[in-house]
Amino acid sequence: MDLMANTLLSAGASPAMIHSVEEIPEFTPKALGVCINAGTLTPDWLPGMKLAAQVANQSKKPWVLDPVAAGGSSFRLKACLELLALKPSVVRGNGSEILALFKGCVDLNSKGADSVHGSSDAVDAAKSLAQQSGSVVAISGAVDYITDGDRVVCVHNGVPMLQKITASGCSVTALIAAFVAVDPSHAVEATASALAIFGVASEVGMDMARGPASLRTLLIDSLYGLDEATALGRVRINRL
Amino acid sequence: MDLMANTLLSAGASPAMIHSVEEIPEFTPKALGVCINAGTLTPDWLPGMKLAAQVANQSKKPWVLDPVAAGGSSFRLKACLELLALKPSVVRGNGSEILALFKGCVDLNSKGADSVHGSSDAVDAAKSLAQQSGSVVAISGAVDYITDGDRVVCVHNGVPMLQKITASGCSVTALIAAFVAVDPSHAVEATASALAIFGVASEVGMDMARGPASLRTLLIDSLYGLDEATALGRVRINRL
Amino acid sequence: MDLMANTLLSAGASPAMIHSVEEIPEFTPKALGVCINAGTLTPDWLPGMKLAAQVANQSKKPWVLDPVAAGGSSFRLKACLELLALKPSVVRGNGSEILALFKGCVDLNSKGADSVHGSSDAVDAAKSLAQQSGSVVAISGAVDYITDGDRVVCVHNGVPMLQKITASGCSVTALIAAFVAVDPSHAVEATASALAIFGVASEVGMDMARGPASLRTLLIDSLYGLDEATALGRVRINRL
Repeated sequence: MDLMANTLLSAGASPAMIHSVEEIPEFTPKALGVCINAGTLTPDWLPGMKLAAQVANQSKKPWVLDPVAAGGSSFRLKACLELLALKPSVVRGNGSEILALFKGCVDLNSKGADSVHGSSDAVDAAKSLAQQSGSVVAISGAVDYITDGDRVVCVHNGVPMLQKITASGCSVTALIAAFVAVDPSHAVEATASALAIFGVASEVGMDMARGPASLRTLLIDSLYGLDEATALGRVRINRL
Repeated sequence: MDLMANTLLSAGASPAMIHSVEEIPEFTPKALGVCINAGTLTPDWLPGMKLAAQVANQSKKPWVLDPVAAGGSSFRLKACLELLALKPSVVRGNGSEILALFKGCVDLNSKGADSVHGSSDAVDAAKSLAQQSGSVVAISGAVDYITDGDRVVCVHNGVPMLQKITASGCSVTALIAAFVAVDPSHAVEATASALAIFGVASEVGMDMARGPASLRTLLIDSLYGLDEATALGRVRINRL
Repeated sequence: MDLMANTLLSAGASPAMIHSVEEIPEFTPKALGVCINAGTLTPDWLPGMKLAAQVANQSKKPWVLDPVAAGGSSFRLKACLELLALKPSVVRGNGSEILALFKGCVDLNSKGADSVHGSSDAVDAAKSLAQQSGSVVAISGAVDYITDGDRVVCVHNGVPMLQKITASGCSVTALIAAFVAVDPSHAVEATASALAIFGVASEVGMDMARGPASLRTLLIDSLYGLDEATALGRVRINRL
């Protein structure tokens, strides 16, 4: 949550971390977008997650699902599939997470949040999943793929060392929620832009980084300081 | 909690994060001061918070309340008002939080922990709230105001970029608890000093910061390394 | 959890943070090692902790216990002793924590996670505790001591400023779990190596640190970048 909140603050958004079913119905309609993250999942978190998704839907606010380690256990997979059935605007996962959602079965090789599949291995699964679910599906990895089931957009920004920063995936999902909140009717474009901008910030940060912890600091600083010229000059998005 | 604990460690205090009603009665009397923070509130946290306040009162230990996003929902407002009724030594919030406590009603414009009101908008509310509650009330913002209902003290230290660091408000509240623990009979002075010293550390850090994440690092480093001459030379406190 | 996960990622391990009894039986056997940490303990966390220990034992996977603030309250002490009875491969604590486990009584002077005893004060207690429990016992401090009840190994790496970084003790325990997972049959050697390497990383980081927060960043960066020559040249381990 800490890195997610700082990512959002640096990007100009105003995050609030709300978990309680007591306040979700009242607070969620004030938000412009919602991010639901399955990390460190326990059964008592699920009702709040589902309620937030439902209230977001009722309020016509976009919401984004991060199915962290979806293939790690039956409990987690079932929870992520139940959340997916509530029709998020966007689902963002790594290759292993998207494959687990598509196949609907536990991944015996799952190491948790770290992917054991490349993002390109999951493109067909992502297209099918997008068609079935009606959600935009994004796979992050060496290349990021974003699809609405028809189009597939590729983002080539980012650096490998992001994988050595815990919650960097969660944080880009939060950024996607913020971008989609700005233009809910163009969720593919907003998702690709968020992934590209986060990737550009990591590239700018990488120039000075001495390792994963300084990259984490520089990533947030770069996101905060990113100007239009740098962003436009560095973003690399194309159709598959 | 992470930034709060590192703030306290850097300032020379010894933090412990205790939540369980099972150990609050036994542990709280060993502490010199208690900080109760309403961030990421759920109903199962409330009994521990109230018990910690009560045990602190019984043990004659000062405790400080951070009513995070008090106006964000009815549930949160009720919880914060119940905690306020347990007579904290100090309440520290931003303009929106103090106004919500004073008015006793939910803020329809609340964005959560980010204030939609300037600190100066809440000075009269803070004075009345201090008179009613018997607590010292501190509003942080561009200028910080501290009042016991009679005197109003202003602190002019700090940098705007602190608002881009999640939990920076929570951390200064923790520092207030540490300062008030040193001299509980001068809670106004201790609160103003904590806000000023945290602000000075942010000013020193800002000289080298490239954005919010490096400022966060430099803030803690500066707090740790602050010497008396720098502190005395930079602190700007006056009566309103 | 954040610093623990980043420590593990920087060292080349693949962490997953699992708390729910619903997924512990299915996920734990996939892990090569387990770390159980008593920080911020509440009663609802205990069943998951015990279950993880039991499943690790059944799966013949090593697990490591961090008895955070064991002497802080009766509740916490009882919980830590119950976990110790489940036979961890290694227990790592500071002097006060190891003394509390050995004596089986609450420490009236406990400040929580900060030790009020030097590591050398607890060497005899650690030897007896190792003999009684069958676990390797490690005391961290100015000098780290590791014992199986017979041999006592000393590690002289590390810097005092680590005590000013919250969760640095938790993080070295997580690193011990990763090292012991590589060679469970040499738990003393693996534990001493993890403590030494973490200490070396802090020494390398200390050369550029301006305070506890930059040290935290540099510690992770140094751990990530550590080469064999630096490690071998700096590690200082001897028999007592």
